[in-house]
Amino acid sequence: MTKEITLYNSLTREKQLFKPIHAGYVGMYVCGPTVYNDVHLGNCRSFVSFDIIFRTFQYLGYKVRYVRNITDVGHLLDDGEDRIAKGARLEQLEPMEIVQKYTNGFHDIMRIFNALPPSIEPRATQHIIEQIEMVKAILANGLAYEKNGSVYFDVPKFAQETGQYGHLSGRVIDDLLQETRDLKRQDEKNHPADFAIWMKADPEHIMRWPSPWGEGFPGWHLECSAMSTKYLGKTFDIHGGGSDLKFPHHENEIAQNFGSCGCAPANYWLHGNMLLLNGRKMSKSEGNTISPEQLFTGDSPLISKGYTPMVVRFFMLMAHYRSTLDITDEAMLAAEKDTNE
Amino acid sequence: MTKEITLYNSLTREKQLFKPIHAGYVGMYVCGPTVYNDVHLGNCRSFVSFDIIFRTFQYLGYKVRYVRNITDVGHLLDDGEDRIAKGARLEQLEPMEIVQKYTNGFHDIMRIFNALPPSIEPRATQHIIEQIEMVKAILANGLAYEKNGSVYFDVPKFAQETGQYGHLSGRVIDDLLQETRDLKRQDEKNHPADFAIWMKADPEHIMRWPSPWGEGFPGWHLECSAMSTKYLGKTFDIHGGGSDLKFPHHENEIAQNFGSCGCAPANYWLHGNMLLLNGRKMSKSEGNTISPEQLFTGDSPLISKGYTPMVVRFFMLMAHYRSTLDITDEAMLAAEKDTNE
Repeated sequence: MTKEITLYNSLTREKQLFKPIHAGYVGMYVCGPTVYNDVHLGNCRSFVSFDIIFRTFQYLGYKVRYVRNITDVGHLLDDGEDRIAKGARLEQLEPMEIVQKYTNGFHDIMRIFNALPPSIEPRATQHIIEQIEMVKAILANGLAYEKNGSVYFDVPKFAQETGQYGHLSGRVIDDLLQETRDLKRQDEKNHPADFAIWMKADPEHIMRWPSPWGEGFPGWHLECSAMSTKYLGKTFDIHGGGSDLKFPHHENEIAQNFGSCGCAPANYWLHGNMLLLNGRKMSKSEGNTISPEQLFTGDSPLISKGYTPMVVRFFMLMAHYRSTLDITDEAMLAAEKDTNE
Repeated sequence: MTKEITLYNSLTREKQLFKPIHAGYVGMYVCGPTVYNDVHLGNCRSFVSFDIIFRTFQYLGYKVRYVRNITDVGHLLDDGEDRIAKGARLEQLEPMEIVQKYTNGFHDIMRIFNALPPSIEPRATQHIIEQIEMVKAILANGLAYEKNGSVYFDVPKFAQETGQYGHLSGRVIDDLLQETRDLKRQDEKNHPADFAIWMKADPEHIMRWPSPWGEGFPGWHLECSAMSTKYLGKTFDIHGGGSDLKFPHHENEIAQNFGSCGCAPANYWLHGNMLLLNGRKMSKSEGNTISPEQLFTGDSPLISKGYTPMVVRFFMLMAHYRSTLDITDEAMLAAEKDTNE
């Protein structure tokens, strides 16, 4: 027997009694890290939150299949360069050496935070075929178009035909003029809100695979649609991630799933909120940032001492995952005191 | 400046001065585990040996790209069932849950043994496209043939045309009548020594991908040819693995590389020898077996007490990797004494 639980669903914007698709089972997909540099403390909070959600469902008697991916291709910077490829260029390593280095680092940090590993940890590059098949399906459904070796999702047509665009993020298409991440090759798009699901590889691009549209690589949003479908089915119970992923990533995931399978990927959407530092958003350029290591060692002018990983974990769990959480030295000292009592 | 080192090359059967392809750099590929059950102590010895070889080259001043794969598809049992799929069936899990569980377990054991992670740890399922491209190349070179949706490597034709079959293992084709692992569908082969490089998936087979020959999955040997070529180039410095992999796995890898690229994969082949227990081969059916955990905890009738991982590592390194090493309680006690002195 499983016990009842109520969840806030970002899609419907209300608390709902959780009803699993299969009694006793939960399928949960959480967007994992892009492994091109050291994991950010804000990401750690997100994954610690979903660790608690994973453990909570197990505690309530559910058998949980928890899928959390590794993004190792396709997540582009604003200038169009692949994040992994840029890391490789800067460190003079093969892209997969970058992936390995930062995947190891991510796993190390998750272990230090006592977060359980997911049931399946699929990688984007491990599912190129599945992503190509999904592009084919979206094209066959008339909801994408090919231009010069790239394939774009036709957002206005999808929105008009299905009425399914913008519900999660609350965005309307007219607002989306320049907000998508693949700013490169904007002129190839029929509409600025369209987004790439397959991108042609320039000659200097290292990570590339053959496809029906020539050599290229998948768009960033596509991997999560392909991998959640493969391991959890066309519609599964819970999709989670940080609140910054609502748009465009999750909105576009929903569009891709409808566009290929004709149905919504997940029944419940859960989003974790931001971690603040001294009341402000963490920002490297403003010096308002702290790494997990600095928090553990105390090697930062922003804190008076180091805190053990279990104090940091306890501190993270003192706020609900949907609330912002403000790291200050006083709050950390109080959390440390509480764990000692 | 790098220092000189002499290696025993299994291919030439002699000690040779190591000459890298690119001065100052070493490319090394080592066959990793098939992640369908807990890692065997014998495998641990092999990976600890290659950890020392990896560290030795770094100590000698080389920059090493060390690639060690994860086999997560295609390694069949004698009855033709995929090892991962069988694990999934027995544990009532999705195949990729099996892969995740035992990959985590393998990483945990490697960490306990203080073995450094490789530079790149590619997975077979991550390189299906690269494997399909290699099958196409071998077919285009006339060294393979398709039968009923499977593709077989034509060993006699390859041997006759290139003279490159059997040098590593010392086998001659006439001896190979029933020795290859893919015993299923023997009747499809033109010659018993031929081996599958792509296999048609039966309807009940879960792990399957579309290909020019229909839905199927790659043959076990193919992944290492495809992944070593991708990350180290067509010809690289060192290929390693346990001595049990010489045939058929490594012999067939060489055939596939010649058959697709026209050149040998590696200049030096290094093979680790077996771990014995009380003078005999480890065997579950005969009760002559011990797991890493049992060795650490002492929870086995074959030893008087537990030994720390560093004592076990030290013990493993007391013999050269090319020699058999016999685990006995006396030898372990002696190793423990030596580490305390």
